[in-house]
Amino acid sequence: MYPLPTTPENILHYLIHLTMRTHTCGELRLTNVGEKVTLCGWVQKVRKFGGMTFIDLRDRYGITQLVFDQSVDADLCDAASKLGREFVIRINGEVRERSDKNPNLPTGNIELDSKSFDILNKSKTPPFTIEDDTDGGDDLRMKYRYLDLRRPMVQQNVIMRHTVAQEVRKYLADNNFLEIETPFLIKSTPEGARDFVVPSRMNPGNFYALPQSPQTFKQLLMVSGYDRYFQIVRCFRDEDLRADRQPEFTQIDCEMTFVTRDMVLATFEKLLRHIFKVVKNKDLGEIAHMSYDDAMRYYGNDKPDTRFDMRLVELNDVAKGKDFAIFNNAEMVLGICAKGAANYTRKQLDALTDWVKRPQIGAKGMVWVKCNEDGTYNATVKKFYDQDDLKKWADKMGAEPGDLMLILSGDTNKVRKQMSELRLKMGEDLGLRKADEFKALWVLDFPLLEWDEESNFWHACHHPFTRPRPGWEKIENWGDIKAEAYDLVLNGNEIAGGSIRIHERDLQEKMFDLLGMSKEEAETKFGFLMSAFEYGAPPHGGIAFGFDRLCAIMGGQESIRDFIAFPKNNSGRDTMIDAPSPIDDEQYEELAIAPALAETSGQ
Amino acid sequence: MYPLPTTPENILHYLIHLTMRTHTCGELRLTNVGEKVTLCGWVQKVRKFGGMTFIDLRDRYGITQLVFDQSVDADLCDAASKLGREFVIRINGEVRERSDKNPNLPTGNIELDSKSFDILNKSKTPPFTIEDDTDGGDDLRMKYRYLDLRRPMVQQNVIMRHTVAQEVRKYLADNNFLEIETPFLIKSTPEGARDFVVPSRMNPGNFYALPQSPQTFKQLLMVSGYDRYFQIVRCFRDEDLRADRQPEFTQIDCEMTFVTRDMVLATFEKLLRHIFKVVKNKDLGEIAHMSYDDAMRYYGNDKPDTRFDMRLVELNDVAKGKDFAIFNNAEMVLGICAKGAANYTRKQLDALTDWVKRPQIGAKGMVWVKCNEDGTYNATVKKFYDQDDLKKWADKMGAEPGDLMLILSGDTNKVRKQMSELRLKMGEDLGLRKADEFKALWVLDFPLLEWDEESNFWHACHHPFTRPRPGWEKIENWGDIKAEAYDLVLNGNEIAGGSIRIHERDLQEKMFDLLGMSKEEAETKFGFLMSAFEYGAPPHGGIAFGFDRLCAIMGGQESIRDFIAFPKNNSGRDTMIDAPSPIDDEQYEELAIAPALAETSGQ
Repeated sequence: MYPLPTTPENILHYLIHLTMRTHTCGELRLTNVGEKVTLCGWVQKVRKFGGMTFIDLRDRYGITQLVFDQSVDADLCDAASKLGREFVIRINGEVRERSDKNPNLPTGNIELDSKSFDILNKSKTPPFTIEDDTDGGDDLRMKYRYLDLRRPMVQQNVIMRHTVAQEVRKYLADNNFLEIETPFLIKSTPEGARDFVVPSRMNPGNFYALPQSPQTFKQLLMVSGYDRYFQIVRCFRDEDLRADRQPEFTQIDCEMTFVTRDMVLATFEKLLRHIFKVVKNKDLGEIAHMSYDDAMRYYGNDKPDTRFDMRLVELNDVAKGKDFAIFNNAEMVLGICAKGAANYTRKQLDALTDWVKRPQIGAKGMVWVKCNEDGTYNATVKKFYDQDDLKKWADKMGAEPGDLMLILSGDTNKVRKQMSELRLKMGEDLGLRKADEFKALWVLDFPLLEWDEESNFWHACHHPFTRPRPGWEKIENWGDIKAEAYDLVLNGNEIAGGSIRIHERDLQEKMFDLLGMSKEEAETKFGFLMSAFEYGAPPHGGIAFGFDRLCAIMGGQESIRDFIAFPKNNSGRDTMIDAPSPIDDEQYEELAIAPALAETSGQ
Repeated sequence: MYPLPTTPENILHYLIHLTMRTHTCGELRLTNVGEKVTLCGWVQKVRKFGGMTFIDLRDRYGITQLVFDQSVDADLCDAASKLGREFVIRINGEVRERSDKNPNLPTGNIELDSKSFDILNKSKTPPFTIEDDTDGGDDLRMKYRYLDLRRPMVQQNVIMRHTVAQEVRKYLADNNFLEIETPFLIKSTPEGARDFVVPSRMNPGNFYALPQSPQTFKQLLMVSGYDRYFQIVRCFRDEDLRADRQPEFTQIDCEMTFVTRDMVLATFEKLLRHIFKVVKNKDLGEIAHMSYDDAMRYYGNDKPDTRFDMRLVELNDVAKGKDFAIFNNAEMVLGICAKGAANYTRKQLDALTDWVKRPQIGAKGMVWVKCNEDGTYNATVKKFYDQDDLKKWADKMGAEPGDLMLILSGDTNKVRKQMSELRLKMGEDLGLRKADEFKALWVLDFPLLEWDEESNFWHACHHPFTRPRPGWEKIENWGDIKAEAYDLVLNGNEIAGGSIRIHERDLQEKMFDLLGMSKEEAETKFGFLMSAFEYGAPPHGGIAFGFDRLCAIMGGQESIRDFIAFPKNNSGRDTMIDAPSPIDDEQYEELAIAPALAETSGQ
């Protein structure tokens, strides 16, 4: 499971500290045969067979088989056979070669001829089985998370997360990044999401906020000349939770000075490749760059899953101008080619049509064209398009005999989104989204701002500290200016995002102004940052990785929850410790706050 | 300053990413002479000399001298001479050998023959000088912390902290410790200090608490079988702040399974020695063990500074029974021997007497005895004690000619405390507490409980999860039972503390009962932990280091503030960002809280 220490210094140290046990349950081998050893661990399984009792003793490092022989020591064997699941014992015995070897277990060549044991602690029967395929539901597992954490799968996730964290730090420290801690009790300056706030007892009526990210502090560190900064740091957002969001989450937060965008991309491409190489032994390959516009055009999505191709193809020039009013009236006709899917049955295609018509997707209908093996086409729209017309479609989409073309139409933005969903579903159905395959992509050139009809102000697509792309001064419409921002996408998930920052007071002021912040508001919230920009602020930029998600994707899973030791549920509750919970009157009083008056619900 | 990368891989990487600059300001040497380079940095100093302008260009890595020659390029030289302090520039030039070398600077053999430069950002004149010996007061430096962080001394502290953190993790990961993150939004269960609390918008009327330490979670991880855990983690205590306390602070938090006390001590002794060796290149030597009782007896203090000896000597048997009523009536007469201090003048001794009589120390008076070079004694109490009497004192205290004996008397506990203070002051005055000398000590065998007269309940000396020393079952009085607790003391500061924990439900229940917690209260607060103990909880124990303090002491300083990038002041405020601050009505409403009604101050 976990590598044993390899330097003599460490081995010695390791041995010295194992005197409550001489070995772990994962390390005995044939070379240890004949040694008297002491192990500690949990009783995984007790089996009786003839006059023998066998116990699988487990710890984090592995499993060792203990053997008790009725004919040698009947009392001991009896006592052992009464041990319950998850009892904690310390056992003395002699290592011997197994007659019946287990090649699936690293310790499978040996067993322990047991001489004596102590029960270090008993265990009630766990409320669910401690196995990957457990009988415990989500709620039960969360309430007894300390037992859930014993399951091998969860344990592997937690250990992998540890390994990724060490490798990230190693890479960054080796590359002159300094780990610098930034404060958790900061100022409430909502960056988009709501802040969690903390009433200050010493400053009645005042509140700290928990950071949504260390953004302004890491920029100040660049102003201070620290050149390269990183931190693996907890962040907080008081948002309504979705299945895969947590109120507290962890970021790998980084910032660099005197860098261009491409330097940042190259630095963190190497980081990602490093951890994949070391942790997963996979070569991730070079990471492609793609503009936001291209991502939207070819994938209908700013975080495309590029493990498979199946690009969106614009068909306006070949699909319009016939008698098919739906296409003629659509702003955009979009197709994808599902390789080798011409064998989809009518039933499957109807189900697919129903799927895109669900409100979550929202398409009005779907056109499909099968590319038959004989070069002809079978289509829902045969009466509007003849075989030559359909051949033009196929040529545009690179469709060959055996392929299936799927076409949606409508408003460009909407149909792109719908097609993106359909593409992902087809990728899933055709087995093109493999959990153990990894493909990363840089998405670049996002718009800097987008117009918010509601507020009548611009809205920052990334955040208000993002720098416009060079040459922005010559562009008249703010909406046409691109940002020096970048997202790192892995298997269709945004795992990191960042930007080159504004480092001049006047440009930062302009940005706040465009976002509809008054001079006073800007000064109150970010005066310290703008003031810092007046004292020799260098050009700088950075990135932040979502660490929970990175680990989940590396572990081949969609949900981040089992990569967090103690996660919260969808209501933001920790059901194990029963938090959050009420505080008492004295605490209210000390904090100079009161419960809000409950609204009367009577009639 | 900071080691450059040494592997070819890293060097290559380093170069690729420096294309906005070809080198840092700390790396050019004679071997670079003739190279055309580009540097970025801050203008530290501009000097004009004859027809030349010299600029010291600074970044985190060092300082490089730029030269501009009026006779070669008058415009460039003029422009350079107008650059202000802390301007950020990018400079192109050619490396050449200096005629006037500076042996104090790693780059002192070369200078840059400047060809052109850009101003990347201007700077206003900083409100204080960016030097170790700055003219800025505390308040000003905290308001402009981003400038304060540029001062070399603060920068060295921050970089040292980074290095210590990396080495701590390396050592622990190499020794099979897993870094596992525990939650920040937990449950309010005051452990002694007050919790900071966080109102939950999604659960109105309920509050999270910020952890005072991850104590219960790390114990649960041991129950879960993770065997060895660590985390460098932020903790929070809402206490009234003293000069050297922060509302948020960082712990190196560790826990181990299947260990005895001595295994924990050996593991973390090695950790401390490792970081001293790697970071300070100092061999800390073996760390002595001392019982709490001995620490109190010999040093009057449970965290003695053992860089110097000067132990407290009990003199009752030789000081009592004469006509000196003060000693006769005292419970304890205690002396220390200040080596070589017999030359203290009467004035100095009077000042010392005044010092111990200050209310902070609280002694009624002080007796001194000078050991003259001729073997006689000079004492304030000569009329009560003859030379033979005083020789007995000297013999007991190991005092030799030239030494000074100082004696205090009173109630044992009080006089020990007073003497501890006097000992530290004498150590300071005699230069025995050297900032660059390090001496560590384990203090053991603390009492488990002490009786609290006020509440009429026992109080846990360490915390309620601490295990009593083996054999406790046979001791009748709870007050006589020792704890399996340990403190690691460095130069008179507690830098770490920990214990072997209780892992049985019944013993933990008993402990809560002794501490005056009702069954219901114990269940509400710690039911999850006691429940976890019923499912195969293994024996375990751990330790937590105060990371801020460890860094401060390693840096030879008493105050932790300049080892924290963004500290708070004594009112818990960050004056730079102006936090904490009021929140708006909408936030109050969303959080289901209200401001407490202000008490009317009118008549």
